[in-house]
Amino acid sequence: MSLVIIGTIAYDAIETPFGKTDKIVGGAATFAGLAATYLYRPVKLIGVVGGDFGDENLNILKSRGIDMEGVQVKEGQKSFFWSGRYHNDMNSRDTLVTELNVLADFDPVIPATYQDCEYLLLGNLTPQVQLTTLARLQHKPKLVVLDTMNFWMDTALDDLQKVLRQVDVLAINDAEARQLAGEYTLVKAAEKILTMGPRYLIIKKGEHGALLFGDGQVFSAPALPLADVFDPTGAGDSFAGGFIGYLANVGTITFHNMKNAVIFGSALASFCVEKFGTERLQELDQTQIRQRIAQFTALSQFEIGY
Amino acid sequence: MSLVIIGTIAYDAIETPFGKTDKIVGGAATFAGLAATYLYRPVKLIGVVGGDFGDENLNILKSRGIDMEGVQVKEGQKSFFWSGRYHNDMNSRDTLVTELNVLADFDPVIPATYQDCEYLLLGNLTPQVQLTTLARLQHKPKLVVLDTMNFWMDTALDDLQKVLRQVDVLAINDAEARQLAGEYTLVKAAEKILTMGPRYLIIKKGEHGALLFGDGQVFSAPALPLADVFDPTGAGDSFAGGFIGYLANVGTITFHNMKNAVIFGSALASFCVEKFGTERLQELDQTQIRQRIAQFTALSQFEIGY
Repeated sequence: MSLVIIGTIAYDAIETPFGKTDKIVGGAATFAGLAATYLYRPVKLIGVVGGDFGDENLNILKSRGIDMEGVQVKEGQKSFFWSGRYHNDMNSRDTLVTELNVLADFDPVIPATYQDCEYLLLGNLTPQVQLTTLARLQHKPKLVVLDTMNFWMDTALDDLQKVLRQVDVLAINDAEARQLAGEYTLVKAAEKILTMGPRYLIIKKGEHGALLFGDGQVFSAPALPLADVFDPTGAGDSFAGGFIGYLANVGTITFHNMKNAVIFGSALASFCVEKFGTERLQELDQTQIRQRIAQFTALSQFEIGY
Repeated sequence: MSLVIIGTIAYDAIETPFGKTDKIVGGAATFAGLAATYLYRPVKLIGVVGGDFGDENLNILKSRGIDMEGVQVKEGQKSFFWSGRYHNDMNSRDTLVTELNVLADFDPVIPATYQDCEYLLLGNLTPQVQLTTLARLQHKPKLVVLDTMNFWMDTALDDLQKVLRQVDVLAINDAEARQLAGEYTLVKAAEKILTMGPRYLIIKKGEHGALLFGDGQVFSAPALPLADVFDPTGAGDSFAGGFIGYLANVGTITFHNMKNAVIFGSALASFCVEKFGTERLQELDQTQIRQRIAQFTALSQFEIGY
């Protein structure tokens, strides 16, 4: 039994009001994978990089015990590259460069040792590749979580809808939920999206936390108020990794556990933004995570005898 | 001992995507006063209306048991009038008309029977009038809550800063907190504002809930996800009324009670927006409020054994 994550493994170059990086390691599977390892093992990755990626970069993932058998290395080719600049509010950004490179014709290979997959995270990626991954798994996983974005709603909606019909949980942000449903209020958007396939919907609202809909219930998770957000890149992916990692850890899918998974996802995301790239997610320990969970508890729990 | 509320008592004309009203009863003191009555009595109002206000409108307040001795009726003059149009997102609005009328030279009179004031809400109004009110109270109240807005930061910042030095709690929205502090992140803005006078700061974030800062702690309250917001007018005032009403009810100022007060404020605000104007706040009962509090609890409470 394992947790399998498919998504991009990339080079990012990031500019924020706090500074600027050269090419550093990024990608949806990278952030989600690192985050998940703090809650569950084994974590097995599916992805593709170019020969330019370098062993020291692959080691960032390997040293957290991540199984890389499903990560193809295409010698003589270049890794997916994304470059972006965050605005002063850190909530919006401009994409400066997107070079698909090895991602352009990515054909996911699923090693035999990954067929024990019980928890599957379809990280942000072409819906077609997500569909192929689902088709190549011999057994339906116990839980499939999908993280996607507006780009695929604009360019590959039919495929995305096919993916949606096969997943248990969808995680998107508020603007994307409005776009996908064609409804302005999030309650109505959620109602509509929950008829498209997923049993649970998570709406990520950045600094305003997240909403979880499903089983006729709603849960509102806070975001940790931070004095400085250093680099928001990968926060959504870290959320998804923490979320599915927690559920793989407890092993039972209930609304109660889903709520806690959203808190763990939020906690991992709150670490991610404290430093550039994957830096913070490489150096966490269980004590820090326990303390962060306690902060979320203090932040949002109250007791009314009424 | 009593809860005294000063603020506007007004005519509003409102346009929303759901419809349009003629002149209906509005004003900060109106909404806050009605909301507070569900948690504490007596509630005593200070304000001014014109002869055009009409007994049936004053009765909306009187029938909830509100003491109106401090409300001056200026015969032959017109009441404060505000008209606004909400955009489709219901989070932004255009002011169409503002006629100060009787508010232009409002000189607050504090009846002798109001000098037992223990809880004072300075509703949104000219800082100069708020200062006069504070000066005319013979005893410092146990708790002073200030609700204000960006308009006074733009036009009367010196006076507003004098008010700030005399209040215990400030309630403003996120954009106003950023403006007042000159800081973008809310954590830094809160730190700065808490050096300006108030011991506690509430940052209202509309559909994203509210943050409470003070005593070195932070609390994040959710907003109830609503399928339809019918008319947001008065939501902030209802929040302030419910907030101070709860604290007057429990009688002890602790962070624990402040947190609960934010939840009660949020609950009263969530009722307010369900109908036009004061309609919903006139017809509540304790069972509905208890159920709403239970909804807030279910919405945001979790249990992690970690």
